[in-house]
Amino acid sequence: MTFTAPDTLDHAALEEGTAFAPRFDAAGLITVVTTEADTNAVLMVAHMNAEALSLTLETGIAHYWSRSRGKLWKKGETSGELQQVVELRTDCDQDVLLLTVEQTGRGAACHTGRKTCFYRRAVVADGSVTLEDTGLPRLLDPASVY
Amino acid sequence: MTFTAPDTLDHAALEEGTAFAPRFDAAGLITVVTTEADTNAVLMVAHMNAEALSLTLETGIAHYWSRSRGKLWKKGETSGELQQVVELRTDCDQDVLLLTVEQTGRGAACHTGRKTCFYRRAVVADGSVTLEDTGLPRLLDPASVY
Repeated sequence: MTFTAPDTLDHAALEEGTAFAPRFDAAGLITVVTTEADTNAVLMVAHMNAEALSLTLETGIAHYWSRSRGKLWKKGETSGELQQVVELRTDCDQDVLLLTVEQTGRGAACHTGRKTCFYRRAVVADGSVTLEDTGLPRLLDPASVY
Repeated sequence: MTFTAPDTLDHAALEEGTAFAPRFDAAGLITVVTTEADTNAVLMVAHMNAEALSLTLETGIAHYWSRSRGKLWKKGETSGELQQVVELRTDCDQDVLLLTVEQTGRGAACHTGRKTCFYRRAVVADGSVTLEDTGLPRLLDPASVY
């Protein structure tokens, strides 16, 4: 699957047009926000290269590029927590993707075993800031999965 | 407001601890996903530097770093579309922030006048992909605001 080269589009076409021209960065990656279809909850933020994006669109299963491992990452291939694609959107200037999925398996998008990676909130007190656990349960035991 | 330096934390402290150690990138920026409190809708994705993050936490009004303009960006200062902070979360490895807000003004987080920047979806047909407008109305006229 091929995508339109962003530099072939003018500003109006990039922001209002029908050409899909993902603006991969210098490393060939684009930021992806993944949300859960039923709740709109943000599950994770990751990256895709062109191959991962193509595979995601072609197979209906989320594929990313793992920056830490430097390789294509079929989410859930090890853990069983595959993500089925419901919808893919892009933003106004096409440098971010919004992927809506149904999280399969035990429902743990995060490698810590929680539903979402965003399980801690910032709390400000006396001019300093700390994190507080929001209490999300672990849906799987990472030690037994990874 | 000061933040913990990520390199002073071990892996467990970074992922499970109470120290807030945002992992700003080489340019001093961290990716921020901004969602609407009532609906969980993803409104936009932007970046903060340490100053923008401090101001956001101290004032309760979202501040970002504009990469295109190379300056601090109090969201809505020009348009009136300020964002009131409801909650700020970080992810497992603290390199992304999730900001939940009440979008004030006319409710247009996107500079195109729409509620969200994610107003187009990808549609695959015959092996190629195009964008389709999801029909979000313009809540303000960009030409009269910016």
